[in-house]
Amino acid sequence: MKEKQLLMIPGPTPVPPGVLKSMATPMINHRGPEYARLQREILRKLRLVFQTGHEIILFPASGTGGMEATITNLLSPGDHVLSVSIGVFGDRFARIAEVFGAKVERLSSEWGQPADVDALQERLARPDAADIKAVLVTHNETSTGVVNDMEAIAGVIREHGALLLVDAISGLIAMDLPMDRLGLDAVVAGSQKAFMIPPGLTFVALSPRALGASKEARMPRYYWDFGMMLKSMEKDQTPYTPAVSLYYALDEALSLIEAEGLPAIFARHALLAEAFRKAMEALGLELFAQEGYRSNSVTAIRIPEGLDVKAFRKLLREKYNVVTGGGQQRLESEIFRIGHLGFVGPFDIISTVAAIEMALSEMGGPAPLGQGVRAAEEIIMRKPL
Amino acid sequence: MKEKQLLMIPGPTPVPPGVLKSMATPMINHRGPEYARLQREILRKLRLVFQTGHEIILFPASGTGGMEATITNLLSPGDHVLSVSIGVFGDRFARIAEVFGAKVERLSSEWGQPADVDALQERLARPDAADIKAVLVTHNETSTGVVNDMEAIAGVIREHGALLLVDAISGLIAMDLPMDRLGLDAVVAGSQKAFMIPPGLTFVALSPRALGASKEARMPRYYWDFGMMLKSMEKDQTPYTPAVSLYYALDEALSLIEAEGLPAIFARHALLAEAFRKAMEALGLELFAQEGYRSNSVTAIRIPEGLDVKAFRKLLREKYNVVTGGGQQRLESEIFRIGHLGFVGPFDIISTVAAIEMALSEMGGPAPLGQGVRAAEEIIMRKPL
Repeated sequence: MKEKQLLMIPGPTPVPPGVLKSMATPMINHRGPEYARLQREILRKLRLVFQTGHEIILFPASGTGGMEATITNLLSPGDHVLSVSIGVFGDRFARIAEVFGAKVERLSSEWGQPADVDALQERLARPDAADIKAVLVTHNETSTGVVNDMEAIAGVIREHGALLLVDAISGLIAMDLPMDRLGLDAVVAGSQKAFMIPPGLTFVALSPRALGASKEARMPRYYWDFGMMLKSMEKDQTPYTPAVSLYYALDEALSLIEAEGLPAIFARHALLAEAFRKAMEALGLELFAQEGYRSNSVTAIRIPEGLDVKAFRKLLREKYNVVTGGGQQRLESEIFRIGHLGFVGPFDIISTVAAIEMALSEMGGPAPLGQGVRAAEEIIMRKPL
Repeated sequence: MKEKQLLMIPGPTPVPPGVLKSMATPMINHRGPEYARLQREILRKLRLVFQTGHEIILFPASGTGGMEATITNLLSPGDHVLSVSIGVFGDRFARIAEVFGAKVERLSSEWGQPADVDALQERLARPDAADIKAVLVTHNETSTGVVNDMEAIAGVIREHGALLLVDAISGLIAMDLPMDRLGLDAVVAGSQKAFMIPPGLTFVALSPRALGASKEARMPRYYWDFGMMLKSMEKDQTPYTPAVSLYYALDEALSLIEAEGLPAIFARHALLAEAFRKAMEALGLELFAQEGYRSNSVTAIRIPEGLDVKAFRKLLREKYNVVTGGGQQRLESEIFRIGHLGFVGPFDIISTVAAIEMALSEMGGPAPLGQGVRAAEEIIMRKPL
């Protein structure tokens, strides 16, 4: 029964059956009236999930493409950029800026820690901070399971005046990120996360300030060009063929999101993440992310002393059909990760905890069977009817 | 019955039902063994359709992204590039090179004409041609319905020694383009054309020479970086999340292509294109592309004197449910286009011709009902059992 698989990685996330089915809709002309209606309706619903009244651009690409689009449209070679990195994806954001000629200064945290807001404030208060054009921040760092305090970070950066460019790929929709209220200038998201659709679409939401900056910015760009995109979108089109089948899926998934409502979605993610974390602790496992900054979309768990993590994850996958994420780069032998975002319910959590208990127990670990599940149940029961 | 629509544009093309269904397959871990098998199998089959034994890279993007990837990985700012443009997409290829800092020289044909091979040969024989690093060529120009003589073009460029970069987005699989035999250095394709799957994937096949050039080339790139991509592909992965649902579709569609066989696919496209062209001529309509260079994947038809083309295409779409392509840029009031590539059979052609006959007739045009269909039938009947 290989088909009955529990996909518990931080993306691609499971796709609801109705959304999967929608992708079997035949193709349409991307220059015709049906497509125009589809794109308009998608943009209306996207503004709700980004909590913005401003422009949102969709690219047929992975999230990394949305990061590259943000950098190349808002910056010029030689621009001074401050990278506030707390992990693999923060480093990637910085690297892209560097590749395209920005002068990147790094303010990195130890992995597992959130951004140091005091250090950021201090740095931005120095006289030589005046030329910092943009600050790159990760909302939710997928590689470590850490979520940043975006309200505090945004406050500090707003005071300085730099553009605030946010990679929210694995956080958006799972956790509250009110773009307009926080004054974020660019918010990047990706389809295969809490949007509950397959990979292949990336989104960039832009403040009017960012839009203004894009008109002056001189990094080379064609595929990612905001100006060309927005001009075409005025006619309800795109400059090159959009990923039509993913638009069908997106339209369907956004309707599910609109029906559930953002507050309920945030609460569901918070409850399930809390249940999962408590279960891990009940099994004597250690969470990697600093307390108070633990993500509701992905949890990183320290590999217990002596556990062969490759064999452990293989056992989970082959015997129990539960697919987990490994640690990335230098975290490969330090953590494993569970994604619990998007189309996720209480019994996905219970099942995953149960599988971890059984696998740990089989491998001679410390797991008392049922103890993790019990801890998870205690949290899940708090859910109101 | 809006669902019974005939999509006759040069992409997105209709998707076979089994391929549509395959996209409803649940997500998998893109770092796991199922994905690795899928990617390996896709690459094996892709080599057959590109007629190459070399590397092929897939990006989650539109075809324009594949063009940008080719330019930015193979060239450096300041490189002298010769653009052999015969239409909108040739101009786009040149524009991308320019945006990224290449010194682009244009050798353009009048729209509707193929590349001028003699002029190309002459240009490349001049002493100041020694520094031409690459030549950009469009295999099949979607905007005009012209297919270039790639054998002749490749011969001339091989003699000179420049890199030969080919946009084959709307031609590959519909018409023979033996990459290795012709010595093409980069061949760009897109999923929504004769691949018979939805838009969202682009492909770049690379000769060993191109691969070598990519190691020296200094245009800025991150998302499109071949080196990063190939390194990851050695482990049957990709550097960022691949468009998994489109991979399912691709795997399925490539199996259909392998089963039919390239020679039969080329013959089918040739027969149906010929039938369609003969039908248009039987109706007294004029083909836009020069004879001898008419594409088997898309036909451009001159708008007859006095015909309101917008009303005509609207009538086709709203009354007969046949969706056609308009002219692009300055061809908007000069031509309309019919795509007949990918998942296309004889009765798609017959139906389209019949719809055009009826719509022309209703709009007071010259169309004698049935004459176009009769001409098409005469060609289609040549098909062997």
